[in-house]
Amino acid sequence: MRSKRLTYKDQDHLDVMGRGPTGRWNTRVEDSAYWNNKMQADLTSQINKPTSVTQAKNVILFLGDGTSITTLTAARLLKGFRSGNFEHEEMAYEKFPYSTLIKTYSADKVVTDSAASSTAYLTGVKGNQATIGVDSNVQLGDCNAMNVPQFHTKSILKNFQDAGRSTGLVTVTRVTHASPAGNYAHTAERHWESDDDINDIEGDSELCDDIAEQLILGETGSNIKVIMGGGRKKFTPKGVDDPEGGDGGKRDDGKNLIETWINQKQLLGNASYVWHRNDLLNVDTGNTQYLLGLFDWSHMSFFVDQDTSNPTLEEMTTKAIQILSQDQNGYFLFVEGGNIDKAHHLNEHRSALEEALQFEKAIAAADSLTDPQDTLILVTADHSQPMVINGYQERGSDILGLADFSDVDGLPYTSLLYTNGPGYKGEVDGVRPDPSIEDYTNPHYAGASTVPMIESHHAGEDVILYARGPHSHLFTGIHENAYIPHAVRYAACVGDGQQFCSSSNPSSNPSENDVDEEAVIEDED
Amino acid sequence: MRSKRLTYKDQDHLDVMGRGPTGRWNTRVEDSAYWNNKMQADLTSQINKPTSVTQAKNVILFLGDGTSITTLTAARLLKGFRSGNFEHEEMAYEKFPYSTLIKTYSADKVVTDSAASSTAYLTGVKGNQATIGVDSNVQLGDCNAMNVPQFHTKSILKNFQDAGRSTGLVTVTRVTHASPAGNYAHTAERHWESDDDINDIEGDSELCDDIAEQLILGETGSNIKVIMGGGRKKFTPKGVDDPEGGDGGKRDDGKNLIETWINQKQLLGNASYVWHRNDLLNVDTGNTQYLLGLFDWSHMSFFVDQDTSNPTLEEMTTKAIQILSQDQNGYFLFVEGGNIDKAHHLNEHRSALEEALQFEKAIAAADSLTDPQDTLILVTADHSQPMVINGYQERGSDILGLADFSDVDGLPYTSLLYTNGPGYKGEVDGVRPDPSIEDYTNPHYAGASTVPMIESHHAGEDVILYARGPHSHLFTGIHENAYIPHAVRYAACVGDGQQFCSSSNPSSNPSENDVDEEAVIEDED
Repeated sequence: MRSKRLTYKDQDHLDVMGRGPTGRWNTRVEDSAYWNNKMQADLTSQINKPTSVTQAKNVILFLGDGTSITTLTAARLLKGFRSGNFEHEEMAYEKFPYSTLIKTYSADKVVTDSAASSTAYLTGVKGNQATIGVDSNVQLGDCNAMNVPQFHTKSILKNFQDAGRSTGLVTVTRVTHASPAGNYAHTAERHWESDDDINDIEGDSELCDDIAEQLILGETGSNIKVIMGGGRKKFTPKGVDDPEGGDGGKRDDGKNLIETWINQKQLLGNASYVWHRNDLLNVDTGNTQYLLGLFDWSHMSFFVDQDTSNPTLEEMTTKAIQILSQDQNGYFLFVEGGNIDKAHHLNEHRSALEEALQFEKAIAAADSLTDPQDTLILVTADHSQPMVINGYQERGSDILGLADFSDVDGLPYTSLLYTNGPGYKGEVDGVRPDPSIEDYTNPHYAGASTVPMIESHHAGEDVILYARGPHSHLFTGIHENAYIPHAVRYAACVGDGQQFCSSSNPSSNPSENDVDEEAVIEDED
Repeated sequence: MRSKRLTYKDQDHLDVMGRGPTGRWNTRVEDSAYWNNKMQADLTSQINKPTSVTQAKNVILFLGDGTSITTLTAARLLKGFRSGNFEHEEMAYEKFPYSTLIKTYSADKVVTDSAASSTAYLTGVKGNQATIGVDSNVQLGDCNAMNVPQFHTKSILKNFQDAGRSTGLVTVTRVTHASPAGNYAHTAERHWESDDDINDIEGDSELCDDIAEQLILGETGSNIKVIMGGGRKKFTPKGVDDPEGGDGGKRDDGKNLIETWINQKQLLGNASYVWHRNDLLNVDTGNTQYLLGLFDWSHMSFFVDQDTSNPTLEEMTTKAIQILSQDQNGYFLFVEGGNIDKAHHLNEHRSALEEALQFEKAIAAADSLTDPQDTLILVTADHSQPMVINGYQERGSDILGLADFSDVDGLPYTSLLYTNGPGYKGEVDGVRPDPSIEDYTNPHYAGASTVPMIESHHAGEDVILYARGPHSHLFTGIHENAYIPHAVRYAACVGDGQQFCSSSNPSSNPSENDVDEEAVIEDED
């Protein structure tokens, strides 16, 4: 039923809306001279963009889960609103010289989930929805197929290990969740994080290893030097209490994989297990070879919930780089802003953008801690989420505020809206609810959506990848998500396929004759 | 009022939804070997990407109005559904070697309109919303300020004219509409397309020239060799009938600007005025120096409405290139897919994607008609529209069909949904309307939206720019929309500011010392 058309409210009502501290934007300051100078400087910067044609010693891959281009634009606007730079704000990754669009569809779905995409952007092969580290021969939940080595796909993290270089992973989700698991696991079902999960979801835990077990005991997982995130319950048996209370361990098989990790790694060097931010901050990284940090019983808390036992993504990233950079051969580090997606699934745009700002802080830290001459940093997303920035706010406005009034029902709407998810509000007595009388400044406020869903379904448009460092110029135009590992292997000289170090005439722009046709590989694993 | 939660329908119901001709996607074909080979080939292609460091003789700027990255992804999926390439479909512009994100905010608004953005991407300076070809000193509707030459901004089309090179513009909107007007007009109000419009909208047509008059009589407009689009009514006086019927001319001042154009141009060379597709197709381009095509009384028709008097964008683009390429000094051509935006404003996603496919055909034609060694082609958008691709369809699905069922109300939803616009459907008896019993295959079906608007308001996330040809490598990373003209001037050696031809040590990657600080300009006009 179409709402009755009300009179469009007077524009004076706009002054009740969120505005920057400057009030109305003084546009006259930004005249022709301003823009011509600014854009000529940008042109100079572009002309001088570095093309670094050397081996990438280190690679850091930052993955913003569910971090659409809309999320990145909105996060920039929020940061600028707070910094006073407003629309001119520049995020750490926006200073990177290269970017490419990334196509995200999975082997079987037009719009991917985080599991299938992690297979693609971490191993270079597209897999089926909800499977990890296996190719499309493995159907969802097929325990037998997932044990066939020929169906496994090899991650760039494993490539680094095979090359004798160090590896680490950092996330704010459970370390056994879909995105981080793409680094070390091979599974037919992303939800098989513990043996209990396998038994619950039509699997056979005798036949198939759960993800936590693969992380601690598996060939790849057990060689990861730095592991940080949440998810203790997947590592400890039922009956074992959690240090922060809660429900305790969830494993059926009686294994305490945290103790196993400690016992194993203490035989190899200085190893620290920490579960509280304070303990992480006290870790002497110069004297630590192995670090396991599990800061929550399940996923780490949303940033807006201010859980004092949780370190920030920036803090975890910094510690990880400090430990891994001791390896003179180089390292691969995976860092996930995993709660951006989780907040979007709840249509909580305010929380999602806070997570995106935390993600950016971690990237800024990595950028300043590493040398663009030897460290390739990639920043990308696994898929989009259905959030839109709706116009037309004045310059300097708060992107988390109200945007404008509908010229149909006369009611305001928030700048950020979703097309599907739990923010759906329907109508009350035939009228769309007025967000201005709702608590839309609450960090857990859900933006309105078109279609109600318990959790949002992902969105399917291309995402962006930013790159800096050696061979970052391999990331231009548009590519499949599965292209990323192939370019990383080339730049870092690891794994199968073409490698920069073994190319006959290393160059940023060789002639076609330089391509080694023999280097095209038939299979990965 | 939240809808009551219904039982989630069985997944078997999904088979009523749109599917590709292949039925269920056979994912096993695309195994590890498939993806490794495909991505290694892509890597080879990337390594061999050309870096063309020569002067751009010709520049063609394709502007998809309202063409968000989501629109481009959805158009690719639609084309692939029809071609049988499905998700592997590759659009003409996706073969271009470089791309950059583009920030679109205007001088005064976070989310831009098409007028302010045309000032930015065509002249290199951001202006205020709804103004064209003037800097931010000119407020909306300020007739006096718009006549101050110092406030005018100079377009790259004018730069080409000043350099003695040919120019043209092609659109499917009125040729006096906001986007094309950025090439030749300076106005405080985008709606001042005729003198009648000025008098209607608080202007003084004695004091200020309307856009149609600027096109036919203005210094820049009168030097454009090829002009094609719609909008006859803005060029002929009241009382003069339109050849296709309709309402006739709309000018108050008695001027017949079409006759003026014919009389002027026939003094200069062979000139053709056409208003029907058949006449355009019969134009002997090898013997034509000037071409004016006005194919509709107002905007040209939507492609889905199959107006036989309207040529396609591809046909107009081809004719324009054939005429302009006779200039040995080179040319600048602006081509707009202007109805993509207009369909989105109505939430008509099916119509919008058909327009996007027409836009791509025009780009493919230009790509094949021109040489990447001397012609720089740019493809970009002025701003986004609030459409989202909602998951999770099977591979090979029709993006214009139904996606899935809500797990809250049990009803299906279309893959493409909006956050604001006239597609808002509200609720009937407290329940969201079921699209499967609506005529969602009608080309004018409006996808559901979250907030009702008479026409959609634009969306604010960054858009993409694809580039091929000389100096296309200047388009990487992320830039302001106002950066585009500065890079074009550099590549084509026109206008103020840094130019490739006059740089001391032409190179794709000069050292910082090569930058001529003197070249940074103070003002444009």
